[in-house]
Amino acid sequence: MEGVLSQQQLDQVYVVLVRARNPSNIGAVARAMHDFGFRYLRVVNEYAVPFETAKSAVDASTVLAGAGVFDTVAEAVADCTVVVGTTAVGDRSLQHQLYALPEAASKMSESLADSGRVALLFGSEKTGLSNDELSHCNWLLTIPMQQHEDLRHPSMNLGQAVAVSLYELVRESRVLVGDRVPAPAAAGEMERLTTLLTEVLEKTGYTRRHPANCDDAQIRRLVLRMGLTASDAPVWMGILRQVLWKTQGPEAEGDG
Amino acid sequence: MEGVLSQQQLDQVYVVLVRARNPSNIGAVARAMHDFGFRYLRVVNEYAVPFETAKSAVDASTVLAGAGVFDTVAEAVADCTVVVGTTAVGDRSLQHQLYALPEAASKMSESLADSGRVALLFGSEKTGLSNDELSHCNWLLTIPMQQHEDLRHPSMNLGQAVAVSLYELVRESRVLVGDRVPAPAAAGEMERLTTLLTEVLEKTGYTRRHPANCDDAQIRRLVLRMGLTASDAPVWMGILRQVLWKTQGPEAEGDG
Repeated sequence: MEGVLSQQQLDQVYVVLVRARNPSNIGAVARAMHDFGFRYLRVVNEYAVPFETAKSAVDASTVLAGAGVFDTVAEAVADCTVVVGTTAVGDRSLQHQLYALPEAASKMSESLADSGRVALLFGSEKTGLSNDELSHCNWLLTIPMQQHEDLRHPSMNLGQAVAVSLYELVRESRVLVGDRVPAPAAAGEMERLTTLLTEVLEKTGYTRRHPANCDDAQIRRLVLRMGLTASDAPVWMGILRQVLWKTQGPEAEGDG
Repeated sequence: MEGVLSQQQLDQVYVVLVRARNPSNIGAVARAMHDFGFRYLRVVNEYAVPFETAKSAVDASTVLAGAGVFDTVAEAVADCTVVVGTTAVGDRSLQHQLYALPEAASKMSESLADSGRVALLFGSEKTGLSNDELSHCNWLLTIPMQQHEDLRHPSMNLGQAVAVSLYELVRESRVLVGDRVPAPAAAGEMERLTTLLTEVLEKTGYTRRHPANCDDAQIRRLVLRMGLTASDAPVWMGILRQVLWKTQGPEAEGDG
């Protein structure tokens, strides 16, 4: 059943700009958010963000004033239940499920209807999202574009890509009602699980025997593909903690 | 009837910018056209167009090089069969039929299928299309936006408005990115994983500490909820086998 997205549901969407370099692009993103009723902008940058200069953007002042600034993608998405990356596809061999924007918007709307918090990540103007940044994502969306004969992979202007994505999200203003889906685990919980699994793999010698499976991004993707619910995540944390305790060796065995 | 718009049909669309003042906006429009496969830009200005400066826009060089410059709207649309104006609605008492973008795009697609030539007019950043300019239009389209409490009429950034409009026009018409759904693991594989996890829970002492989580059916459901792909299942089997090997204790450690 489709309906209008409420302001509360629009407020469950976090637009996350990763390494955006151009202040006027940040301003353009904020303006597009304002136009379509979205309020929460997060900016991830390793260095000081060229943020003040963006604040002159027309109509975008409330969005920019409320924007959060984070050092890492992990922190910026920690409280979100679904993390969606945007990509121009291209030469990367993608490790993720990929949806064209119209289907992607339907999926996001379902999550919003289930009270999920959706992070929508856009990479830098030049390079898009890196593989490590993509590894924080549950799945990816791409805006279908024209393939040109010069075979260069097309990439959109950042402000335009955000405008088109948000337009599609409110286009039908759909909300699915009913279909109770269990609440998914938050990204911060998944990140803790990733850390714990990494430790287990090291302590048990798995990393040494299968190094090809064990870079950080691969382990994170393996965990995200588990698609854990909020209630299963602590169970897996408990299992991994018990494994770790056991692998400490016999001297620790007394204090189980 | 919906289908793929051919390049020939995309070439029946003329994006017409009326009194655009900012060269970087003209460049952004050209880039959006390039991204979505449209080639024909027309610019109407009474004075010399700030056109040369726009030509540096990324990927937009072919569109800009082929752009036509006209003195009047009448000349710019003379060879078109349908003239569509864009408006943010607002204070004008409209004399025209007005469609929201999704319906407007369907109407335009029908015209293109009938070999019509469609002009899509965008007004100046500040004032939009004047009443005189609107009088050249057969009908109008508006991009649905959020109404804000300050009651100011929202207006989009020109480059974003063009990007969203052209996206909608080609939205239905393209090749979907064949949703790549990874093959799920077979039930037998999941059952082997359940058996192995049960053994891990016992050997590590988890079963003794959390008996309420550990009846057979619960462990099986926990594993099934992982929703494993065919390629992830053996990775998890390997991890659990390594954990088991490690928990055999130090006497087994030699034969890793």
